[in-house]
Amino acid sequence: MSTVGKAAVAWEAGKDLTLEDIEVGPPRANEVRIEIHYTGVCHTDAYTLSGKDPEGAFPIVLGHEGAGIVDTPECKECKFCKSGKTNLCGKIRATQGKGVMPDGTSRFKCKGKDLLHFMGTSTFSQYTVVADISVVAITKDAPMDRTCLLGCGITTGYGAAVETAKVEEGSTVAVFGAGCVGLSVVQGAVQRKAGKIIVVDLNPNKKAWAEKFGATDFVNPGELKDQSIVEKLIEMTDGGCDYTFDCTGNVGVMRAALEACHKGWGQSIVIGVAAAGQEISTRPFQLVTGRVWKGCAFGGIKGRTQLPDLVDDYMQGKLKVDEFITHRKKLPEINVAFEDMKQGDCIRCVVDMRKDSA
Amino acid sequence: MSTVGKAAVAWEAGKDLTLEDIEVGPPRANEVRIEIHYTGVCHTDAYTLSGKDPEGAFPIVLGHEGAGIVDTPECKECKFCKSGKTNLCGKIRATQGKGVMPDGTSRFKCKGKDLLHFMGTSTFSQYTVVADISVVAITKDAPMDRTCLLGCGITTGYGAAVETAKVEEGSTVAVFGAGCVGLSVVQGAVQRKAGKIIVVDLNPNKKAWAEKFGATDFVNPGELKDQSIVEKLIEMTDGGCDYTFDCTGNVGVMRAALEACHKGWGQSIVIGVAAAGQEISTRPFQLVTGRVWKGCAFGGIKGRTQLPDLVDDYMQGKLKVDEFITHRKKLPEINVAFEDMKQGDCIRCVVDMRKDSA
Repeated sequence: MSTVGKAAVAWEAGKDLTLEDIEVGPPRANEVRIEIHYTGVCHTDAYTLSGKDPEGAFPIVLGHEGAGIVDTPECKECKFCKSGKTNLCGKIRATQGKGVMPDGTSRFKCKGKDLLHFMGTSTFSQYTVVADISVVAITKDAPMDRTCLLGCGITTGYGAAVETAKVEEGSTVAVFGAGCVGLSVVQGAVQRKAGKIIVVDLNPNKKAWAEKFGATDFVNPGELKDQSIVEKLIEMTDGGCDYTFDCTGNVGVMRAALEACHKGWGQSIVIGVAAAGQEISTRPFQLVTGRVWKGCAFGGIKGRTQLPDLVDDYMQGKLKVDEFITHRKKLPEINVAFEDMKQGDCIRCVVDMRKDSA
Repeated sequence: MSTVGKAAVAWEAGKDLTLEDIEVGPPRANEVRIEIHYTGVCHTDAYTLSGKDPEGAFPIVLGHEGAGIVDTPECKECKFCKSGKTNLCGKIRATQGKGVMPDGTSRFKCKGKDLLHFMGTSTFSQYTVVADISVVAITKDAPMDRTCLLGCGITTGYGAAVETAKVEEGSTVAVFGAGCVGLSVVQGAVQRKAGKIIVVDLNPNKKAWAEKFGATDFVNPGELKDQSIVEKLIEMTDGGCDYTFDCTGNVGVMRAALEACHKGWGQSIVIGVAAAGQEISTRPFQLVTGRVWKGCAFGGIKGRTQLPDLVDDYMQGKLKVDEFITHRKKLPEINVAFEDMKQGDCIRCVVDMRKDSA
């Protein structure tokens, strides 16, 4: 039986979301219907809403950082899941990319029209339907108004440092962009006992944020005189960084992050999502002399096998989550949350999706 | 005391080498004077001679694939040598790049002019002087007219497969370019028991060469219809290759090699040297979805610690070397060796440098 609930619907690119009553169809085989209590708002939601995402299609229910739901499935059966080398799962990739459930249909209906699903999650709705392999059970004690952030931002940055880069004790790390993802990289680098953690951001207010999460240094490229950020980082690290992370999505920054790596072994990890059609480039000599260019999605963390441990770490005080939440909004104010996100003082806004909130 | 010997001198870019009597100064502190018996001719020599190498300067004595001499020093004391992460040595990099000895001077003189050194070796001379950390002793039984090829080409490709990529048993490998380096990658992949080894080359005659060294498949991109080489390789490997190697120096090929890698874990290794100013590029999404772009020089093999083992492997019949030698020339014919190298049927030409040869 269908359920009716409120959802923030994206009818078309570049327009505000509209609060609507939507019909959410019953789950079919290997699907689960979920009541969303809280959701984060992420730059990727804004990116798709802007119309710049080549895979973006409308109308759609956006949102992918919901409490108890992860944005990377893990079927444990496909070539990817069994490889032991990646957290990407191939099982529902094709349909998920098209905004439909694995059987090719949508579970959302509004004003007589089907709405598309987003990233296999669509958490901007009080009710959503997802594939069973996209759901993970976490400890019941975990507060959903915080753990939702482990569904994307925090895990993406933290995982990039501890799982993808496997930052080593005493190593030098540079993080470009001090938003939720970048500060989570810092947290991961601190956990791995990096010796020097340099945060790079054009917003001077981010210095305090960087320090709060354990960065040892802060550089504002806008304040450098007669020196590029690459030259500055090479100077600060006696030859270059062991690990650098792009958390900006800017392809020029991605290049700088690679070239600020130490010759012989430095690794640069691309995390940010670039605008459609944009490309990264460098001289191949950068790679021939030993630098490594890689990237990851969701930090390389397996959504079902590994995520519950991160929740436990949070519950035991080993992982910061509360500190990222600078703003809270109720569902009807979700467009304000998008505006807030564009300001430098917003690290993460959590939206209350509960029934008495809408 | 200076010694006089014959050398093939490159007086200026784009011109043939000239056979000259040159004065080779005595070795100073931490230097060794060496009598070269045989040398290989490598595309990197031709590249620098062409004038396209931004670091190339003239007049110079080229050559870097000499018997008993390696082109990467290993001081065992610098940050790089002690890192355990790279075969690059930083000790004499600055002066070597400028074509002089570590004390800033040249040991070569001809017609009253100083000649520059090349890659710290200059093997196109009957006598040369090199830093002591650039010399390695190998077993006396090894025939110098073959082992010279371990000074660059064979080690570069073989090492890229076994040391840099660490190709795994059963994995799928694609090698772009079937010259000395590419065929050596094939040999390395065979040694590591790769399951599928695909050689990609525009020259149909290279099919037989690829098979001779153990490739399982050969693809000529020029013969593909309505399909790019990337699409073809993805189709042949059920989703992409585990490891790809660029042995062409062509930046377009480097991109194809990366994009033919399997999502989630595929690694592409850049070996070829691109022309000055050329850049590689791709969509960052290629990295975010788990592909890794890296590279190596001299295959990642440490010139002194690891090279003698390769010579021993050759002596015990475990490593092919003789099979690469398609041409032989004497010193006065060295310009013919350069011409031969540009033809598809020349894998490697060894030049006899001995006194009775000039």
